[in-house]
Amino acid sequence: MPDAPLDDLIGLLARLPGLGPRSARRAALALVRKRRVLLEPLAAAMADVAEHARECLICGNIGTSERCDICTDPKRDPTTLCVVESVADLWAMERAQVFRGRYHVMGGTLSALDGIGPEDLNLPRMAQRIADDSVTEVILALGATVDGQTTAHYIADMLEDRGIPVTSLAQGVPVGGELDYLDDGTITAALSARRQMR
Amino acid sequence: MPDAPLDDLIGLLARLPGLGPRSARRAALALVRKRRVLLEPLAAAMADVAEHARECLICGNIGTSERCDICTDPKRDPTTLCVVESVADLWAMERAQVFRGRYHVMGGTLSALDGIGPEDLNLPRMAQRIADDSVTEVILALGATVDGQTTAHYIADMLEDRGIPVTSLAQGVPVGGELDYLDDGTITAALSARRQMR
Repeated sequence: MPDAPLDDLIGLLARLPGLGPRSARRAALALVRKRRVLLEPLAAAMADVAEHARECLICGNIGTSERCDICTDPKRDPTTLCVVESVADLWAMERAQVFRGRYHVMGGTLSALDGIGPEDLNLPRMAQRIADDSVTEVILALGATVDGQTTAHYIADMLEDRGIPVTSLAQGVPVGGELDYLDDGTITAALSARRQMR
Repeated sequence: MPDAPLDDLIGLLARLPGLGPRSARRAALALVRKRRVLLEPLAAAMADVAEHARECLICGNIGTSERCDICTDPKRDPTTLCVVESVADLWAMERAQVFRGRYHVMGGTLSALDGIGPEDLNLPRMAQRIADDSVTEVILALGATVDGQTTAHYIADMLEDRGIPVTSLAQGVPVGGELDYLDDGTITAALSARRQMR
C-alpha cells in the first residue's frame, strides 16, 4: 500500500477522465520517478492554471483574462459566429485552422435524458451578442448526435426572426473514411446530401 | 488553441503513462471545471509528493522516510524476503494482503533487448540484506515473462551457495480464468504443475 501523500495523489489522479485506479498508480509512480522533469513542472503548471485560468466573459472559452485571445483578436471576423458545445470543440475547430470568425461556447447541449434545458445553456448571452454585434451568419458546429441536432434545431428556431443565415456543419463521409466501416446513418446522410460533380 | 498556462498543463499531462494528447486535453478541461475539488488538491498533492516522497534505503519501496513503513514494521517477518520488479508490483502484493514478510524492489528485470544487465538492478543491496539478516526464504515474485523468468533464474543461481530456499510464484490458471481464453503457455504451465486432489 502506498504511503499517505502518494495515496492521496493516486486517489486524485484516478478522478481524471481517462484514468482509473490502475493507471493512476502507474502515473503516480512515473511522476515520482521523473520528479524534476515531470512532477515538479506539473505541480507548478496546475497551480498556475488554478490561479490564472478563467472563462471568457464574452464567448465562454477558457483563457487567462476576462476576454479571451480570440474575442480580442482584431483579425478575427466578428460578423461570423460559430456556436460550439464545449471548449474542447472550440479547440478542435481551431486545430483545423480554417475558421477565422468568433465563437460562442454553449456549455453543453439540450438533453432530455440528462435533464438539460435551454436555461442550463449559455443561450441568452448568445442572443445578446447576435443582437449587439453585426453578426451576419451563425454557424452551428454541434455534434451529429441526437442531442446536438436537437440543440441545433432549437437555436435555429430561436434565431428565425433575426433574418440572418443559420448554417450547420455538413454531414457525410469523413475524409479518409471507407464506406465499409461507416454506420448506416452516415451513409444515409452522405447520400441525401450528395453533390453534383459535373 | 488553449492559452499558454493551459497549453503547458496539457503538454505535461500528455506525458503521463496512459494519457495521450486528446485525453490530456479532456483531463485539463476537467481540471479547470473542477478547480476547487480537483485541480487545487491535485497541485497540492503533487507538491507534497515532490517534497516528501523518497526511496526506502533498505528495500527500494517509495515512502516518506529513509526506511519505509514495511521495513520498520516489527510485525513484518524479516526472515522472508519477497523480491519484486517494481514498486507497482510491491503494491499489487500488498493489495492481496497475504504476504507478511519484507520486500526487495529490483528496479527492473534483466533484459537483453533493453540492454539491462545485473549491474543496473538493485542486486548488491539484496545480497547484502540476505547476508546480514537472518533470511530463511527468498520468494521471487517476478512476472511470468521471458525477462522476469530470466531474472528469477539469475537470482536463484546467484543465491545457490547461500543454502536457503529460493522459491517463485506458481504459474497456472488465474482464479476466475476460463481455459478457452487462456494462452497455450499458461495451459502448458498449469498442466505440468498439476496438483493431486485425492
